[in-house]
Amino acid sequence: MTRYVHNFYAGPGKLPGSVLERIRDELTDYRGTGLSVLEISHRASPVLELLERTEEKLRRLMGLAGDDAVLFLQGGGSLQFVMIPMNLSAPADAVDYADTGYWAAKALDAARSLGRDVHVAGRDHGAIPSALDIRSDTRYLHICTNNTVVGTQWQVMPESPVPLVADMSSDILSRNVDTGRFALMYAHAQKTIGTAGVTVVVVPRKTQEMIQSNLPPFFDYRTHAAAGSNYHTPPVFAVYVVECMLDWLEQEVGGLQVMEALNRKKAALLYETLDASALFHCPVPSDSRSMMNVVFDAVDPERVPVFCQEAREAGLLGLEGHRSRGGFRASLYNAVGLEDVEVLSGFIADFDRRYG
Amino acid sequence: MTRYVHNFYAGPGKLPGSVLERIRDELTDYRGTGLSVLEISHRASPVLELLERTEEKLRRLMGLAGDDAVLFLQGGGSLQFVMIPMNLSAPADAVDYADTGYWAAKALDAARSLGRDVHVAGRDHGAIPSALDIRSDTRYLHICTNNTVVGTQWQVMPESPVPLVADMSSDILSRNVDTGRFALMYAHAQKTIGTAGVTVVVVPRKTQEMIQSNLPPFFDYRTHAAAGSNYHTPPVFAVYVVECMLDWLEQEVGGLQVMEALNRKKAALLYETLDASALFHCPVPSDSRSMMNVVFDAVDPERVPVFCQEAREAGLLGLEGHRSRGGFRASLYNAVGLEDVEVLSGFIADFDRRYG
Repeated sequence: MTRYVHNFYAGPGKLPGSVLERIRDELTDYRGTGLSVLEISHRASPVLELLERTEEKLRRLMGLAGDDAVLFLQGGGSLQFVMIPMNLSAPADAVDYADTGYWAAKALDAARSLGRDVHVAGRDHGAIPSALDIRSDTRYLHICTNNTVVGTQWQVMPESPVPLVADMSSDILSRNVDTGRFALMYAHAQKTIGTAGVTVVVVPRKTQEMIQSNLPPFFDYRTHAAAGSNYHTPPVFAVYVVECMLDWLEQEVGGLQVMEALNRKKAALLYETLDASALFHCPVPSDSRSMMNVVFDAVDPERVPVFCQEAREAGLLGLEGHRSRGGFRASLYNAVGLEDVEVLSGFIADFDRRYG
Repeated sequence: MTRYVHNFYAGPGKLPGSVLERIRDELTDYRGTGLSVLEISHRASPVLELLERTEEKLRRLMGLAGDDAVLFLQGGGSLQFVMIPMNLSAPADAVDYADTGYWAAKALDAARSLGRDVHVAGRDHGAIPSALDIRSDTRYLHICTNNTVVGTQWQVMPESPVPLVADMSSDILSRNVDTGRFALMYAHAQKTIGTAGVTVVVVPRKTQEMIQSNLPPFFDYRTHAAAGSNYHTPPVFAVYVVECMLDWLEQEVGGLQVMEALNRKKAALLYETLDASALFHCPVPSDSRSMMNVVFDAVDPERVPVFCQEAREAGLLGLEGHRSRGGFRASLYNAVGLEDVEVLSGFIADFDRRYG
């Protein structure tokens, strides 16, 4: 399949061509069943085995402990923003949040809407805070490991004396992370590991022991853990796409180390191009720059419309910044190839030569 | 595409072959975008237009009012079981439920877990109650229009002096219904109108006015209505499958009247076969029988293993009853063809001749 466009959408974002071809080829006959994966009961063995395999592959790639619960849920990060405080704290409990961007702020707003005593342990939407003020009696510290809107990322995870909860929606499996340090990790799939409709939640054993009693069962992580993500019908197709992505990451890319090295190379190339540009600049300091979302601005706002038009004509999609920020953003998730970034960097350098 | 199996799964269940072929054919290039529908931003025009078109088609087919909000949410019926009491009642408020089966009971359990004063207005898992005892001060009456596990269906919707809320998960768009009578309707897609991962919720204007204040925004129907089902990333692919199913229903089947007539014919054939059988019987009285889920039992339990084995060999899938009930069940959702039901009826009649 020849693809003429370069997809830099911030999410849902690019999937590898080979993964799309596999999904297409299996669509009307899922592995010899004579059925599509779209029409198989969630209680039938092909779907039960899909859930088991996908969980096992995630465990292997993330280096999870044997007693970590791995859940495939619906509702995106937004449902986790409410489920986390519901599970890990009582209404007036202290909970701490690092406010490092648009989505990190949404998470703490949700905790506030549930009556939690929210403390902002650090706030900076332009860079990752160098230190956090974490309360000793707080139930947990919540961070967003990568901030898609403002283009910052925790390059080194913060030290936390309290349970550390992480929204990894936009960088899960993009780099090697010591997952053993986290009390809870979650990520919706549509950026680095799949398509919209499923959210991966990892709940270690000791965190399960913190869960509040008397929650409605649907909100209680233990309900889904006990049922193997099959308490109610899971989003089967979206889980299937996650499995395809994990297979691609292991078998075609060559594993997480190779993926991280490639992601570093992609980001370095684009940041170098921007730092050398006279017409564009990236406002994020280097120790906070995201490997996944590169934000940049035009020095002269008058150049913006012509850049946008020429980029579209060159097949460069999704370069508009988030509506809350404006400017530009290129998202370099796992499936975005080095060749895509080379085309974008070449385009920016050429634009500089022609208009600079 | 030749399909050698007959899919009677209770859900996720059969999709039409032509719908699967369309999804396959469009998978790597969604309508000339050069992208898959799996990798397009939910803020980009192809997805915004998909949401608008699908909503419009649902409005037309269901005969909805112009100010009814039509939402595409995640979380299945199970999330609606908690969102409905959260939106339409305060913690100690009176709410009434008709307990007509496995899922109807789950819905009322969820309301109880939220501290609502739940009253069972009628309880019968073997037939539809002939009358309900509805409290005058109750916030709403909740019914499940079709009971998948026990094979009963509200053939005539109950009279209700209070707002009527309906779980239509297993019979939405299988028959003509006066949707104007309902204060809220919801259905996850994986039975009659799509695949797992999206739930359609219809919230009329006057019901929006009943919604509690100070709900966390994610749980408030008005949040999703104001954002056109794009408050957070919607389950794009599952919505796309709904659109394909609505197109199939309108263009290939010929609309809802034709669909209902076909569903009546399918169910009548299977019930007639069972009523004529010496080896099997359907325990549901005729005025409560479901057009969607036909449950039946073997008169002699010793016949069960051989029936199951021969059915599997004949490519008849998904005939096992729900694990809470046992026995047999054939689900005849919209996509199940008359030819599938003819094969099943023929198989049962032949089994009768050979073993009866």
